[in-house]
Amino acid sequence: MAAQGVTPRSEDYSRWYTDVVRMADLAENAPVRGCMIIKPYGYELWENIKSALDSRFKATGHRNAYFPLFIPMSFINKEAEHVEGFTPELAVVTHGGGKELEEPLAVRPTSETVIGHAFADWIQSYRDLPLLINQWANVVRWELRPRLFLRTTEFLWQEGHTAHATQDEAIEETLRMLDVYADMAINECAIPVIKGVKSQQEKFAGAVDSYSIEAMMGNTWALQSGTSHFLGENFAKAFDIKYLAEDNTQQYAWTTSWGVSTRMVGGVIMAHGDDKGLRLPPRIAPYQVVITPIWKTDEDRDTVFAFAMQVEDELRKVDVRYHLDERDGLSPGFKFNDWEMRGVPIRLEIGPRDVDAASVMLSRRDIPGRDGKMPLPIDNLADKVNGLLDDVQAALLRQATEYRDAHLFEASTYDELKEQVADGWSLIWHCGTRECEDRIKEETKASSRCFPLEDNSEWHPQGATCAVCGKPAYGKAYFGRAY
Amino acid sequence: MAAQGVTPRSEDYSRWYTDVVRMADLAENAPVRGCMIIKPYGYELWENIKSALDSRFKATGHRNAYFPLFIPMSFINKEAEHVEGFTPELAVVTHGGGKELEEPLAVRPTSETVIGHAFADWIQSYRDLPLLINQWANVVRWELRPRLFLRTTEFLWQEGHTAHATQDEAIEETLRMLDVYADMAINECAIPVIKGVKSQQEKFAGAVDSYSIEAMMGNTWALQSGTSHFLGENFAKAFDIKYLAEDNTQQYAWTTSWGVSTRMVGGVIMAHGDDKGLRLPPRIAPYQVVITPIWKTDEDRDTVFAFAMQVEDELRKVDVRYHLDERDGLSPGFKFNDWEMRGVPIRLEIGPRDVDAASVMLSRRDIPGRDGKMPLPIDNLADKVNGLLDDVQAALLRQATEYRDAHLFEASTYDELKEQVADGWSLIWHCGTRECEDRIKEETKASSRCFPLEDNSEWHPQGATCAVCGKPAYGKAYFGRAY
Repeated sequence: MAAQGVTPRSEDYSRWYTDVVRMADLAENAPVRGCMIIKPYGYELWENIKSALDSRFKATGHRNAYFPLFIPMSFINKEAEHVEGFTPELAVVTHGGGKELEEPLAVRPTSETVIGHAFADWIQSYRDLPLLINQWANVVRWELRPRLFLRTTEFLWQEGHTAHATQDEAIEETLRMLDVYADMAINECAIPVIKGVKSQQEKFAGAVDSYSIEAMMGNTWALQSGTSHFLGENFAKAFDIKYLAEDNTQQYAWTTSWGVSTRMVGGVIMAHGDDKGLRLPPRIAPYQVVITPIWKTDEDRDTVFAFAMQVEDELRKVDVRYHLDERDGLSPGFKFNDWEMRGVPIRLEIGPRDVDAASVMLSRRDIPGRDGKMPLPIDNLADKVNGLLDDVQAALLRQATEYRDAHLFEASTYDELKEQVADGWSLIWHCGTRECEDRIKEETKASSRCFPLEDNSEWHPQGATCAVCGKPAYGKAYFGRAY
Repeated sequence: MAAQGVTPRSEDYSRWYTDVVRMADLAENAPVRGCMIIKPYGYELWENIKSALDSRFKATGHRNAYFPLFIPMSFINKEAEHVEGFTPELAVVTHGGGKELEEPLAVRPTSETVIGHAFADWIQSYRDLPLLINQWANVVRWELRPRLFLRTTEFLWQEGHTAHATQDEAIEETLRMLDVYADMAINECAIPVIKGVKSQQEKFAGAVDSYSIEAMMGNTWALQSGTSHFLGENFAKAFDIKYLAEDNTQQYAWTTSWGVSTRMVGGVIMAHGDDKGLRLPPRIAPYQVVITPIWKTDEDRDTVFAFAMQVEDELRKVDVRYHLDERDGLSPGFKFNDWEMRGVPIRLEIGPRDVDAASVMLSRRDIPGRDGKMPLPIDNLADKVNGLLDDVQAALLRQATEYRDAHLFEASTYDELKEQVADGWSLIWHCGTRECEDRIKEETKASSRCFPLEDNSEWHPQGATCAVCGKPAYGKAYFGRAY
């Protein structure tokens, strides 16, 4: 049964999403169309994703820095594909300090240009390479059909930018960061993403090749959840990023860039949510445990809160993120629904009888009804809760993987693909041309998600042909509906 | 003796600052005038300040959220003083997505307006209060005379925004956050700031009262390093932030806002730096310890690096932030100067002879020459280093406090003030009027820093008169040159 006020997923998935974002108190629309206000609960979820990424970046040798919000328009114009891709989405500052500016400024849609300009100055010799930089920032891309977290005019993200002496090293870095993203998605967000390379049409404006992690949402649609770009020498040539090699020759550097944004929050909502609301993986949940005291009389209140403090003491021992629901004037049922809506992995109820029994009543968010409930003695409660959090984390990943696998298909003909994309993603031999992709999109609404690395041991395999147009195949690609 | 390439402070303090920012690799000017690029070493310093603040905000019950970068111009215009104060500094977006916008958008110079708008929606009843929010963000205020970290068109900061049921609670919050700032400045940044209230001329545009922490730089100038504003009902009335009180009446909320920015990095540079460069307080230093192996032959290299790894193992035990200098082709002297320039509190040199003695040669950044050097056996090295880091932290605070106290004066006449502000800050009975402040500024270049809380047990004390104009005094104020 759906929570009150939430549209069931089966009735209207899109409205379900909007309802959950609002009722779980994650975000809301800002006064300026297309922008969003990320509310504390949504922001804490993002902070946890951010910190899981940041520690991985540092462990792989990257350092954080900060580059300016404003980019001269002339910079954007330096890389041909880049300007074509981003100009229609720019927000432009024309006035500053009460005067019209001589050159309008773009609000950064991404920072390859301004960082490329700095790299050209920072890099002189092979000793300066590799240069491994990341920045946490807001970016702006004008959005005509905004959806909270999924597509917003302003969003928060990290963008990694690196420069290398050789093509091989740059490609290695591109794939390393793709692996970092997949590791984070799978092991923190419990989302079994698929790694692959995007088609030439779907790649980043200015990249040689773009790689992505693709996540399957609860309606089988795909969400591109992170991208890693091999930029070749494109930006090095546009911004003159050169280094003196060991053999005393001047060489262009090879660069990469990669990003994950607040879109990932949308992915977490849709990969795990059910008709009762969010289901958050414990590793990124703002509250891993909520304690809900239940009382009628003032005397009971004192008793249950005193016991709740003992429970808090226990949980502190193992560094669990918990929250004590002290709200007055709300029924237990209301509170239970509220915390289910917010997706807290474990709820501990404490009523006067539980106090007498020196135990709490535990409910798992991932197992509905009685099966997910168990009384838990306060002795050794912390370790038990910690273990159960691991179980919930694993269960969410398992459920998401089972769901994904039940909706991954392989097609040998276009007709098969047409049937399959109505209920999931279809893997098919594909030429990778724009004409063919456009045709499939128009006729089925499914777009090419990626050529999955796992299913393609080589590109342009001898004799393989596109199942739709018959031209030589680039490899096997997934097609599916996508956000 | 000054480090090579650094202007001595006594010769030109302003050039010294610029030299150190550049040579310690903290930041540089961006292509867009007034904006800055914060380089990794500078950003890591900011990250440590940020994390010291963030944990204090959370400990005092605040939650992080994120509000949009773009604010409709009509919002800025809603609070009379606010619009007057900020309009001249705005950056304005007039075009988005390829079209001219119907209403131009301000790039946020601060977020009272857009957050006030949200609060009006979030707050319905006294149960929703207090509402305690913080956001980490970039803001833009057009700057005609930019200086890295001190005054930049774009800067990073946090801005706290809270709403309360009563005036008393809001004032209490304003002062609580002022205390949090002072605690952070003193105990993390080792800067003995003075807390006070700003004059009506110097307050935030839209505040009833603005409080600040004022820090003394190495040239005796003042740096306003953080501000906390009691906003009264001003923004509540402009944005209709009302709540249903327990007595069933509709009441306006009382709001506060408070901020600390990347300016604080400039404060750390100037409060502690010497002619050799930065001197960083260990608690916020990106590297607390640098290990510099010294070798001539390849055989020596292997030996010293093997020993350096043992030292690293020791340091990891106590969670010290260390860095191993693996650079090749640079002389020990060059490296020593480089790490002194970057202000690393403790340097551990390891040469072949140190390896033989199973010890390292330790140098304290805060004690120049031989007095700061000591051999340290590797046994128990970690605890010893940890203890010395505490000593360095305490020494920097002590030195800054002594310097400050030697340049704080009290004047009973305007003539005394004139002499004193040439060499520090002068405390004097002051009326607090614009005319008097403007006159003092024009004649002495010193501005009113604050009415220090410690030296003013009451405001408008009976019989006390302004030492400059003779009108009734508001209290005792510090005057000094300021950034």
